[in-house]
Amino acid sequence: MKNEEILNQLKEENIDSMFVYKPENIKYISDFYPSSFAYLIIGEEPVLYVNSIDKIDAEEQSTIETRDIRKLGELKDLLNGTIAVESSLDFEFLKFLTDDTNLLKLSTVLEDQRKTKTKEEITKIRNSIGIASNAIKEIDFTSTEKYAAASLEFDMTINGSIKPAFDTIVASGNRSSSPHSETSMNRVETPIVVDWGAKYDHYCSDITRTFVDSERQEEIWNIVLEAQKAAINTISPGVKLADVDKAARDVITEYGYGEYFIHSTGHGFGLDIHENPNLSFNAEGVLEENMIVTAEPGIYIPGEFGVRIEDDVLVKKNNEVLTKNLDKKLEFNL
Amino acid sequence: MKNEEILNQLKEENIDSMFVYKPENIKYISDFYPSSFAYLIIGEEPVLYVNSIDKIDAEEQSTIETRDIRKLGELKDLLNGTIAVESSLDFEFLKFLTDDTNLLKLSTVLEDQRKTKTKEEITKIRNSIGIASNAIKEIDFTSTEKYAAASLEFDMTINGSIKPAFDTIVASGNRSSSPHSETSMNRVETPIVVDWGAKYDHYCSDITRTFVDSERQEEIWNIVLEAQKAAINTISPGVKLADVDKAARDVITEYGYGEYFIHSTGHGFGLDIHENPNLSFNAEGVLEENMIVTAEPGIYIPGEFGVRIEDDVLVKKNNEVLTKNLDKKLEFNL
Repeated sequence: MKNEEILNQLKEENIDSMFVYKPENIKYISDFYPSSFAYLIIGEEPVLYVNSIDKIDAEEQSTIETRDIRKLGELKDLLNGTIAVESSLDFEFLKFLTDDTNLLKLSTVLEDQRKTKTKEEITKIRNSIGIASNAIKEIDFTSTEKYAAASLEFDMTINGSIKPAFDTIVASGNRSSSPHSETSMNRVETPIVVDWGAKYDHYCSDITRTFVDSERQEEIWNIVLEAQKAAINTISPGVKLADVDKAARDVITEYGYGEYFIHSTGHGFGLDIHENPNLSFNAEGVLEENMIVTAEPGIYIPGEFGVRIEDDVLVKKNNEVLTKNLDKKLEFNL
Repeated sequence: MKNEEILNQLKEENIDSMFVYKPENIKYISDFYPSSFAYLIIGEEPVLYVNSIDKIDAEEQSTIETRDIRKLGELKDLLNGTIAVESSLDFEFLKFLTDDTNLLKLSTVLEDQRKTKTKEEITKIRNSIGIASNAIKEIDFTSTEKYAAASLEFDMTINGSIKPAFDTIVASGNRSSSPHSETSMNRVETPIVVDWGAKYDHYCSDITRTFVDSERQEEIWNIVLEAQKAAINTISPGVKLADVDKAARDVITEYGYGEYFIHSTGHGFGLDIHENPNLSFNAEGVLEENMIVTAEPGIYIPGEFGVRIEDDVLVKKNNEVLTKNLDKKLEFNL
């Protein structure tokens, strides 16, 4: 089904074959995630080429035909006509694909299709969210930020996460005032921003909670929550991406903190932690049914602290907050 | 010093400027590891361009001039003449660099320079090895493979590792017969192959130990150890890369297991877990002083089990095994 749709899309773009090497795209098409270099060629019939280390697993797990990998020098024999490549393709690869680089075309067909999730993908993301949600309940903040992050990752791993969806962030005290703060060896202070996710069968989850314990922190937390609710309330098929961002941004601006909301309101995720769509002020396009997006406004006051609240939302007529079983406000000890 | 050498090398290749975006290469040149998209342009004076999220940290940590990132559309203004790009550069980037793609040249100047390590780099790798070596001593094998791997990663993280150098492998029982076995939720059996490493200030370590407990396993373990010793004994500046591989392979072949040694004997590492040189049977070139390489022969008997022993070696006249403080044979409980 997936393959057919991809082929049809390629035909519409007048493309004859596609060279796919990103492991996430290979997983998406074949359900097999290669452990080492592999590629997949989409033509009349899609074929997955793997090396000997992956042969047994690929034959067991791949939903499409699997063959032994060919040398790069033989790639030209496998491709023909106009060739689509992923935007992330390495420069050095081009020469192996064709003698005429005019035949190469960037195609976002896979990224476009991956924007909306299948039923099976939604189930895997639910599982990933379940693993991540359970882990936060056990977290011990009485030591360093690194210790808290390592505990969270440990708990997710032993409960079925392949690996963290991204480097777990535990940013506390004034380190929380940067959204990309590197988790430190410092003792945990307040507020505590925790941004974490699991990978279940290679599908991500992405959640943030902020633990607050002063009136000032609570005040900012409430504004962020109001902004997040406003954003989530807009989420529905057909709604402009920029309007979701605007809903959150308007609330924060109204309270006078607009300049401290320094990132976009959310993003799609799935096999990758950042996928289309991007819910930013200048994004074009609209939400579609079965997209899964984060809603994660934040306020970062330089030199003071930051607050972010992030949930994962399935786009449908009455949208579903997939992280709904995890309280926005969690208990903690310091 | 580094910059000067790189510039000289580029001049020899008739290259006027270089566009660098791999975070490891940016770290190598500037000592700053960007947390989000950044690029570095090598020209008469190298300049690092970072976005607002990294600005404060970059200004503090970078050893070269730092400026605000420019839009992709403005990149052409920053580059001139013949432009070197990294082999991993994204296809979609090319159009932003120049209107004339004939001016683009792949250059491996950074990878070539990174093959040999500076004194500071060697110290960081020693620290990374220290963190990894200590962690294995605490490992608990009485539960699942995942549990053991998660414990190891937890211990490294709380002792200063940024993150694991790669996905930790705990492959036990017949799952050890594949060198790329995915760590499973199965209870640990014997033998146990553990392949792990830390990242200290972004510098990797890479170690493997195999825990054995039967005569048959011990027999294979002894052969692998003999092969590893033979390989390590050859390591010295000027020695052919292929000869290091041959030394290990000859021992294993002599015992009749040649067909079960299905990977190369070792590889360089540093900021990346796999760097040049590659110690394989068909590698060209020779070892140079201050390279750091793994020595990791293995025997993988299909359907039975596998054994691998991996240490990290600093190339010099009397080579130094950097992992020498970690016993080859470690105690364990099941």
